Amino acid sequence: MGDERLLREIEEFFYEKIPITRAMGVRVIKYDGGQLRLAAPIALNHNHLGTAFGGSLSALATLAGYGLIWLEMEDKTAHVVIRRSELSFRRPVRGEIVAICRRPSEDQLWLFKHAFALHQKAKISLDVTVEDEGLVAVEFRGIFVALR
Amino acid sequence: MGDERLLREIEEFFYEKIPITRAMGVRVIKYDGGQLRLAAPIALNHNHLGTAFGGSLSALATLAGYGLIWLEMEDKTAHVVIRRSELSFRRPVRGEIVAICRRPSEDQLWLFKHAFALHQKAKISLDVTVEDEGLVAVEFRGIFVALR
Repeated sequence: MGDERLLREIEEFFYEKIPITRAMGVRVIKYDGGQLRLAAPIALNHNHLGTAFGGSLSALATLAGYGLIWLEMEDKTAHVVIRRSELSFRRPVRGEIVAICRRPSEDQLWLFKHAFALHQKAKISLDVTVEDEGLVAVEFRGIFVALR
Repeated sequence: MGDERLLREIEEFFYEKIPITRAMGVRVIKYDGGQLRLAAPIALNHNHLGTAFGGSLSALATLAGYGLIWLEMEDKTAHVVIRRSELSFRRPVRGEIVAICRRPSEDQLWLFKHAFALHQKAKISLDVTVEDEGLVAVEFRGIFVALR
């Protein structure tokens, strides 16, 4: 799942379907089945203090959640939306913005896919961290819903 | 405070200091002392379903919070950052995205400014709603901190 072609496909999907991701300079760095890693340059996403804009941090974290679900859902007709999110901004991000979505446990993923197959609707909680030079800068938790 | 010149000044500040706001097409619509209203076109901020991207909704709500604090702080040397946020996405936004930040009560604002003058640091909770055709689509609550 970590092959280069797939990463470029997701990036193209983002750029084509969610145009602000192109303006943000989002790149899909890695997906190894354990985590999905996105990045965006500070030059396009800074605020008035020269650190990462809170809105860009939130957008990149949200995108990492969407991305992970798209990669995991076998049923590509599912519509994925975000229902709730909570963010804690612990420290400013001064360099490249890197958002990492951890793959949920096999059990959680199985329940999510099973509920979707059965009820045409399912939800899942995803944790994303944004890191700067290896330190956690932002903690994000999002509830995502898949609908037919 | 609602005069056109001031609104254009804030817009210019956003564009110059937070470049992603230009890519989002953010406009400062109104500030009447009761609420600050920002807007952004769906054409630049849609997702793969043609509705507003969750990341753009979050970014516009965050910006409305920043904007209100900048308008209210007499001390323009303050650095304002976001510490926490919670968002509830209730319904999709299909048309123009409009984010409305309510001005906190006089008491809350007084406490915030007083704490900042005294301790060089103060925090305040702000509520923002995103509306679509008059219905609340997103509820946002953010904790913002002003630092010297």
